[in-house]
Amino acid sequence: MKIESVDFFYLSMPEVLDIGDGSQDALLVRVRAGGFEGWGECEAAPLPSIAAWMCPRSHSACKPVRDSVLGQTLDGVADITRIGNLVRENSLDLLQADHTLSGVDIALWDLLGKKLGQPVWKLLGYKQSFAKTPYASVLFGDTPQETLKKGRAATAAGYRAAKFGWGPFGRTTVAADRDQLHAAREGLGADGLLLVDAGTVWVDDVARAAQVLPALHETRALWLEEPFVSGALDAYKALSIQAGSLKLAGGEGAHNIWMARHMMQHSGVGYIQIDCGRIGGISVAKQAADDAVARGVTFVNHTFTSHLALSASLQPFAGLEKDVICEYPVEPKPLAVEMTANHLKRDANGSVRAPDTPGLGITPDLLAAKKYLVPVEITVGGKALYSTPPL
Amino acid sequence: MKIESVDFFYLSMPEVLDIGDGSQDALLVRVRAGGFEGWGECEAAPLPSIAAWMCPRSHSACKPVRDSVLGQTLDGVADITRIGNLVRENSLDLLQADHTLSGVDIALWDLLGKKLGQPVWKLLGYKQSFAKTPYASVLFGDTPQETLKKGRAATAAGYRAAKFGWGPFGRTTVAADRDQLHAAREGLGADGLLLVDAGTVWVDDVARAAQVLPALHETRALWLEEPFVSGALDAYKALSIQAGSLKLAGGEGAHNIWMARHMMQHSGVGYIQIDCGRIGGISVAKQAADDAVARGVTFVNHTFTSHLALSASLQPFAGLEKDVICEYPVEPKPLAVEMTANHLKRDANGSVRAPDTPGLGITPDLLAAKKYLVPVEITVGGKALYSTPPL
Repeated sequence: MKIESVDFFYLSMPEVLDIGDGSQDALLVRVRAGGFEGWGECEAAPLPSIAAWMCPRSHSACKPVRDSVLGQTLDGVADITRIGNLVRENSLDLLQADHTLSGVDIALWDLLGKKLGQPVWKLLGYKQSFAKTPYASVLFGDTPQETLKKGRAATAAGYRAAKFGWGPFGRTTVAADRDQLHAAREGLGADGLLLVDAGTVWVDDVARAAQVLPALHETRALWLEEPFVSGALDAYKALSIQAGSLKLAGGEGAHNIWMARHMMQHSGVGYIQIDCGRIGGISVAKQAADDAVARGVTFVNHTFTSHLALSASLQPFAGLEKDVICEYPVEPKPLAVEMTANHLKRDANGSVRAPDTPGLGITPDLLAAKKYLVPVEITVGGKALYSTPPL
Repeated sequence: MKIESVDFFYLSMPEVLDIGDGSQDALLVRVRAGGFEGWGECEAAPLPSIAAWMCPRSHSACKPVRDSVLGQTLDGVADITRIGNLVRENSLDLLQADHTLSGVDIALWDLLGKKLGQPVWKLLGYKQSFAKTPYASVLFGDTPQETLKKGRAATAAGYRAAKFGWGPFGRTTVAADRDQLHAAREGLGADGLLLVDAGTVWVDDVARAAQVLPALHETRALWLEEPFVSGALDAYKALSIQAGSLKLAGGEGAHNIWMARHMMQHSGVGYIQIDCGRIGGISVAKQAADDAVARGVTFVNHTFTSHLALSASLQPFAGLEKDVICEYPVEPKPLAVEMTANHLKRDANGSVRAPDTPGLGITPDLLAAKKYLVPVEITVGGKALYSTPPL
């Protein structure tokens, strides 16, 4: 097969709020080849990712992603690897390219799976898709009372684990953080798995982060996620030593395999969280999962958008029996729910797993998606270089 | 002062060739505040960088760069730091933001310098701007014969140092690489400083890179630059040990302080090369220079575009007396030459230095720039969100 077309569809809620909720917009990617269609999704900032697809060339190592994808042969897994390497070489100096490639790579796997009649995780070399324990991923409430309610709601909805993140956490006093953590624990009950996401709030301030450790221990949190920005490896390392039995989690900011590796190697994290929509797609996420196994770090998906993104993010660690925790957005905006015709529902045990159907097993709902479609037109030097195609 | 406007001007040669020459286009940035104008430049991929400036918000940590800059107070150095931190926080998930911020930060320094009547290097805390030895930065010829000619031309033009990079180097046989290196050495004569840039050609293949070490020693190269991609720190480290007296150089791909630090900490490079137009501007480049001093690594600018970018890139290490080598593009396209009214010419000793004039000391030539101006128009959801303003 030859890759005939790659199209990007920018979907957005009518109003995008100033909150840490990544489900307010989406960049849906459609690839066509040999009579098949594959679908993928790039995480965040749709317009720059479209620009990275189609911008004019700057020089030999700063070409648009398009130049390395359109017209390429796609007959097997090796072709997807080859195309990814080509993008990284030809778009070396185009920073946004990794995010654009991510959605394209996901769509290529979906398409190849459909062509070969195999689920993606089988193409990745796994023999089985193991059940994962989804954690309800929610934002901290503005008050402990709200957080308590959210915890109770998660428990009532049958979640055995919940992650609270962003919102006011870490932004005022240590006492306020403590109140939030106790509210979350109370909401989940004694048995619920409590995960905490600081959303990089302390940048690289180890001392401030360490002040929250006692409350995290009191409330028996399983992990503290992103106390610092992705690059602050030394800060992570220092805190990981002070944290004792509490594990650190991070890695969602990784936009290439190197960043994920550096984090596993130098930061002392116990959990590496990979977003397929950012790191370069399923291909690079699987490399990270392989590295995590080798290093004894637990792999977790990072997913805060649709179930298309969720299925993609489950594939790289579908076959890792011991890495059971998975992120599962429970407060997505209607856009993220409606844009797919089917969903990865929890089974009777409350578990989810990467589907057995060919490709990613998720079908976009194009009629629904159209409601949220934001057409984009880009003219450069008087030439209409980009116009959103019909969905 | 309040930041009143920030405008981006995409300049391009009529034809952009598929060669490793970064001077074929430019993204010029103009900031206005308090009756002053500052100018900066973002390195490469103008369109995605414009998109990162003005794209609609995706969520609270994925806002356009604009949201953290327009209307901000600019009275002193601390304000530039604050604005940079704001961009990094508000655009955490917008990958291209660092490149966009780079040009804005450079323009802010230029503007502040003009307002305060001080050269930027003084505002950075340096007491003196030391002479630097420019190396002629040229591409390897397609044949050793061409490379020989380029070396002779650099020597004839009075350069005491020259860097050969990209082109066919590393792409065929070790013997061919050896021929190229000997041609470069012959061209420079016995006394010239020979620098070699592999342009990431070996990605992370230490064994292939190591095969070139004997020829690099034979030809007394001072450094081998970018044998691998920026993230391949372990590969750098392994090669640095094998390289003995030959030093490795790298870092141009760093788009934040963390990447520069990780490279200095873990890769064994002797020279850290920072591009102000990528790393987040002069502010972050100065942090990298401070770190380099602390670690005993030599700081070098990475500059392959205009003399506006060159002046910006000299500021962060202007006051470091021992770090004398500086990159100086000698084959820039007419666009990169004509877009500034003045240039950082070499003095009688063949040295250059960051100018003593307020700001960056480089004035854009707007009439010339207009010849290369590529207007951009972006419409999102039926709304004209961006149109290149008058230059």
